[in-house]
Amino acid sequence: MTLFGGIEAGGTKFVCAVGSGPEKIESIVKYPTTNPTQTLNHAVDFFEKSDSPINAIGIASFGPIDLHTSSPTYGQITTTPKPGWQNVDIVGRIESALGLPVAFDTDVNGAALAEHRWGAAQRDDTFVYLTIGTGIGGGGMVGGKLIHGMLHPEMGHMPLPRDPERDPFSGICPYHGDCLEGLAAGPAIEARWGMRGEKLGGNHPAWELEAHYLALGLMNIITILSPTKIILGGGIMQQPNLLALVRHEVQSLLNEYIQAPQLFDGIDEYIVRPALGDQTGVLGAIALAQYNLH
Amino acid sequence: MTLFGGIEAGGTKFVCAVGSGPEKIESIVKYPTTNPTQTLNHAVDFFEKSDSPINAIGIASFGPIDLHTSSPTYGQITTTPKPGWQNVDIVGRIESALGLPVAFDTDVNGAALAEHRWGAAQRDDTFVYLTIGTGIGGGGMVGGKLIHGMLHPEMGHMPLPRDPERDPFSGICPYHGDCLEGLAAGPAIEARWGMRGEKLGGNHPAWELEAHYLALGLMNIITILSPTKIILGGGIMQQPNLLALVRHEVQSLLNEYIQAPQLFDGIDEYIVRPALGDQTGVLGAIALAQYNLH
Repeated sequence: MTLFGGIEAGGTKFVCAVGSGPEKIESIVKYPTTNPTQTLNHAVDFFEKSDSPINAIGIASFGPIDLHTSSPTYGQITTTPKPGWQNVDIVGRIESALGLPVAFDTDVNGAALAEHRWGAAQRDDTFVYLTIGTGIGGGGMVGGKLIHGMLHPEMGHMPLPRDPERDPFSGICPYHGDCLEGLAAGPAIEARWGMRGEKLGGNHPAWELEAHYLALGLMNIITILSPTKIILGGGIMQQPNLLALVRHEVQSLLNEYIQAPQLFDGIDEYIVRPALGDQTGVLGAIALAQYNLH
Repeated sequence: MTLFGGIEAGGTKFVCAVGSGPEKIESIVKYPTTNPTQTLNHAVDFFEKSDSPINAIGIASFGPIDLHTSSPTYGQITTTPKPGWQNVDIVGRIESALGLPVAFDTDVNGAALAEHRWGAAQRDDTFVYLTIGTGIGGGGMVGGKLIHGMLHPEMGHMPLPRDPERDPFSGICPYHGDCLEGLAAGPAIEARWGMRGEKLGGNHPAWELEAHYLALGLMNIITILSPTKIILGGGIMQQPNLLALVRHEVQSLLNEYIQAPQLFDGIDEYIVRPALGDQTGVLGAIALAQYNLH
């Protein structure tokens, strides 16, 4: 069996695994993200000690990252605010230490690819994976191709309408104030309501407002990409009522303009949770290694 | 030489041509869009009288349209407000009359494809073509594939932030009020300022506001798709100062968050006019016929 190494490079934790799919994880390790040298050495050690031969490594990374193979800074995490991680050549370090081909993409494009191979988007060639947690990020495919271009998507930073009477909180994005991430990521919820989202009850008005902003973001995604599925992951989506509120608000905002059955009776199968749960991230990294090798 | 027929099916005029590219148009005809029978018969007559053998027909149509070849309503213009044109089977009529393969897509996806083959996006695989006129529509490619999914993009209908103090005009979209089209298409400009855009002077404040809304739309496109180029066509873009205002406003709104040279010194080559001028539409139809046949 052909095995791959996957590195989910997150801002707070790294997950490394050897395997070939959700049913075939040979070994896995999780550890906190510290400084780049220590954190990447830990990954190298893990793969060097693997009993099974590995064909390629995939890295699904927090960003922003440089994905252009022709660029002098290809393989680097670029302008991240995370201390010590600016301009870290993550691909170069792994490639030279392990002597294996390395595939590299954003954590959310990786997660999208994993959901396409094994999860909620197996029948979809044009879809979006959006994660709502400490930050908001999105990835996806169009016609079976991961979305890349100038750089990679930065879906957390789309501008949204905000009615100051309904929501006087002006957002916390240091660049854009009340963009999607500035209004709807975990830290925005905490700053607006004075406590973390998981402490707000399910009937707190926070969730209707949250659903409103997420639905506005989905409106942008639907009008620009016309995906056949939207997968919503991340810690904030753990709030049990939120997904249903988002579905309802998307229908309300679209106002029946787009005539597709997915947006009416099919909405519960159109806006969905990830199917791969906790392992979406590292499976995304493994999927990237497979995607690039084939 | 392999020749193709192209039909630019617009809400106000039809353009039909036989050819294989911008330098190779053998014959062309333009006529007003009347009722479907008369309008489509005119197209059939034109191609039947063509001296040159045609290999396939492309139709680049106003919408919304049904693009799913497996759908019972494939090839139809669906819920258009244009009287008499709801549920018109434009592909079926042309296909059965001419006995040729017919490719079918939106006018803006056609225009995008033509600019990709022969125009401003020849080096771009991930880009967007946006037209700003009587309506606002967008098409484009990701990884060399035209953007299709649930349906086709409806970029005119993305929600935008509007500051009621700066702009008390609440938009004219019958579905969404102040979406992009509701705020920035030609009829919105006319309704807001009491005269048509071409009568407003180049220094009228209308253009800064227009640039602001278009730039917000481009922010959404950039954060969701990360295109390597954005092409702005349509009658409203004829205003000579507008393109420069849009470029400047995009930079201002992005606030240096996305670190790509295209968004700094390269902005004049990033947000551009169509290269094919008047013939983009019918060349788009010809390009669709070629794209589907190969």
